[in-house]
Amino acid sequence: VEIVSTGTELLLGQIVNTNASSLAKQLNELGMDVLFQSTVGDNRVRMAQVLTTALSRADIVITTGGLGPTQGDITKEVSADLLGLKLVLHEPSLQQIQAYFASRGLPMAASNRRQAMMPEGAIVIPNSRGTAPGVILVKGDKSIIHLPGPPYEMEGMFFQSVAPYLLTHFGNQGCIQSKVLRTYGIGESSLEEMIADFIHKQNNPTIALLARNSEIHVRITAKASSSEAASQLIADLEESLRQKIGQYIFGTDDETLEQVVGRQLSAAQLTIALAESCTGGLLSSRLTDIPGSSAYFRGSVVCYSNNSKVLAVGVPQGLINRHGAVSQEVAEAMATGIKDRMASEIGVGITGIAGPGGAVKDKPVGLVYIAIAGPSGIKSYKHQFTGPRSAIKHRSANAALNYVRQFILSKQGG
Amino acid sequence: VEIVSTGTELLLGQIVNTNASSLAKQLNELGMDVLFQSTVGDNRVRMAQVLTTALSRADIVITTGGLGPTQGDITKEVSADLLGLKLVLHEPSLQQIQAYFASRGLPMAASNRRQAMMPEGAIVIPNSRGTAPGVILVKGDKSIIHLPGPPYEMEGMFFQSVAPYLLTHFGNQGCIQSKVLRTYGIGESSLEEMIADFIHKQNNPTIALLARNSEIHVRITAKASSSEAASQLIADLEESLRQKIGQYIFGTDDETLEQVVGRQLSAAQLTIALAESCTGGLLSSRLTDIPGSSAYFRGSVVCYSNNSKVLAVGVPQGLINRHGAVSQEVAEAMATGIKDRMASEIGVGITGIAGPGGAVKDKPVGLVYIAIAGPSGIKSYKHQFTGPRSAIKHRSANAALNYVRQFILSKQGG
Repeated sequence: VEIVSTGTELLLGQIVNTNASSLAKQLNELGMDVLFQSTVGDNRVRMAQVLTTALSRADIVITTGGLGPTQGDITKEVSADLLGLKLVLHEPSLQQIQAYFASRGLPMAASNRRQAMMPEGAIVIPNSRGTAPGVILVKGDKSIIHLPGPPYEMEGMFFQSVAPYLLTHFGNQGCIQSKVLRTYGIGESSLEEMIADFIHKQNNPTIALLARNSEIHVRITAKASSSEAASQLIADLEESLRQKIGQYIFGTDDETLEQVVGRQLSAAQLTIALAESCTGGLLSSRLTDIPGSSAYFRGSVVCYSNNSKVLAVGVPQGLINRHGAVSQEVAEAMATGIKDRMASEIGVGITGIAGPGGAVKDKPVGLVYIAIAGPSGIKSYKHQFTGPRSAIKHRSANAALNYVRQFILSKQGG
Repeated sequence: VEIVSTGTELLLGQIVNTNASSLAKQLNELGMDVLFQSTVGDNRVRMAQVLTTALSRADIVITTGGLGPTQGDITKEVSADLLGLKLVLHEPSLQQIQAYFASRGLPMAASNRRQAMMPEGAIVIPNSRGTAPGVILVKGDKSIIHLPGPPYEMEGMFFQSVAPYLLTHFGNQGCIQSKVLRTYGIGESSLEEMIADFIHKQNNPTIALLARNSEIHVRITAKASSSEAASQLIADLEESLRQKIGQYIFGTDDETLEQVVGRQLSAAQLTIALAESCTGGLLSSRLTDIPGSSAYFRGSVVCYSNNSKVLAVGVPQGLINRHGAVSQEVAEAMATGIKDRMASEIGVGITGIAGPGGAVKDKPVGLVYIAIAGPSGIKSYKHQFTGPRSAIKHRSANAALNYVRQFILSKQGG
């Protein structure tokens, strides 16, 4: 399959092409290989050129965009030209478009009539979510499928009509499935070295590494004749990989660190409270993104000033005077202070310099101390992060979440 | 220009291709025409095929991705092959990569050495934000430019090295410029009606409306022979638009509500403190995303439990008993309480039900009260937001920011 996205707004960078990725994901789940994606503007010559190339190297070409009522919407015309087909009025489509406007009490502009013009012999795909019908054109053993640009319309049409068409006409292409193992606390190259054997002999399933924020994702992709067989291939490799790098894997697929920590806290019936300085509330916000977090999240103090560290968290002023606000001692006092004030089992203290300003002698931008206080004991960590302010905030929050995860794991293990 | 995005994860639909749109936007602002975008996986044959096509129809080919240390990273090798160039070790790059690891106190994996292998004769682009250097290859009147996949690294390199290179070697290609007027507090159709005259007669500049989170963006795009002429066209239209919808415009281009509020606070030498319940620290995090926010942001309390509202913010327990935690009275007590405790000029209280659970009789999910307390007086507002948990958090934070903005404006105006 080749996906061809049309629209000058894409070439101008005014919108991000989410259609290409959502189509690709759906097609892969049907077991179809997407080998190329192309984007071209609303220009007849270049669009014909891109479609010709696509037809030469793919069995199925799926376009998005350019089915609207305006003069810039030319996709159907270009492909009809290319295949030597005339455009003819498709009565059922015209009636459907008229009904769409009537049901909303709106007048239909004359230009909407263009949307009912179809290449002769085309299979017309109804659009239950908008005015532009889609089109399937068959030439020899190739299919060209035109879908509208608005994602909501495109996706509806794909599920309702295109997926069934593809499965019927191109049979079962087998099944491609992926699973992502999400790791934290190890670099890409080191992780690769640890599983180098598996990477070198990879075939089916394949293994790919992907760096995402502070995480490295290990993607396992299997192809098989059935969903069950693909799942089994993935499960076998996953088990082997976990024996090598299990300690770094915190979750799978779309799971986030905050989801994992939230689940741990719920399961262990523990509550948590935070004293955040350089992360400025980010960690609280991420923890409270999880539905039901009020069961374990007691609250937090964002103590940006020394004064608020003393008054709202209970850090001794003398400690700040002796060690500075960015120090292991203050991080630990923040963790125990907030734990006591919010009456939680776990307290987290984070203090650091997010930058770009604020660096002092021996304390550069990116220096962050994180402390985790529990029912019996406290642990603290020093980090030197890099990147812009927002990255330092995110990396600090990720590190803190991972320490909380390990803290709860170790308590449960012991 | 043709943009070639590489990476099997794109073909699998696992990530959305934001690099293509951000590159396209930057290139258009330099006056370069982006005519095609292509995406191909980590496959030597198909990548060579796509690069060959790109070189046949574009003067400048810019790739993203595939410069990492792993076996799947093949972009440089494929293009070196295509141009008949050998890969040779580039000492300065190796030293830079070694320094990058050393500065983080991490060991360098042997595979990172691959990132310093460059096609002979290449112009090497340093990467100040990561380990993968970029490459410019010149063949005849064509340029191939390889940039890394991580957006932060790619963007840094584009601004620092690629844009200057393109301007020097390909001169001034005319100029397309855009400016976005960001509005808050009005719907898309109402805004469209207010500026219908301008939309109907648009030509150059053009006008486009775009709904983004709770904001409506009005994008003005002008084309002219020089940057100055394009700016002038935009400035003229902007002035006319501001006369119609100026009260809703809070900023332009990439300006966020939190930046605007931060600037206002700095200018008026006011400090702020927050008591957040349903927003869970999101508003604090957004305010502290702004460099220099420690000058005006005193701190905040995320008071998720009733107990923390009483103990850490000073809300009278009786008030919660009488009106419930989600009420105008409690929002106001939170705003004045946090203002007093953090000794700030402005206090903000937000209490509501982010959902999906937590609704009670007469208090549905999405009900949010926001109060702003200032040196002389307090204002409060009731909202009924819709959407999932994260949307309710974001909409509440946006509304609160806009109220703070208006609060400061009204004080300065009076």
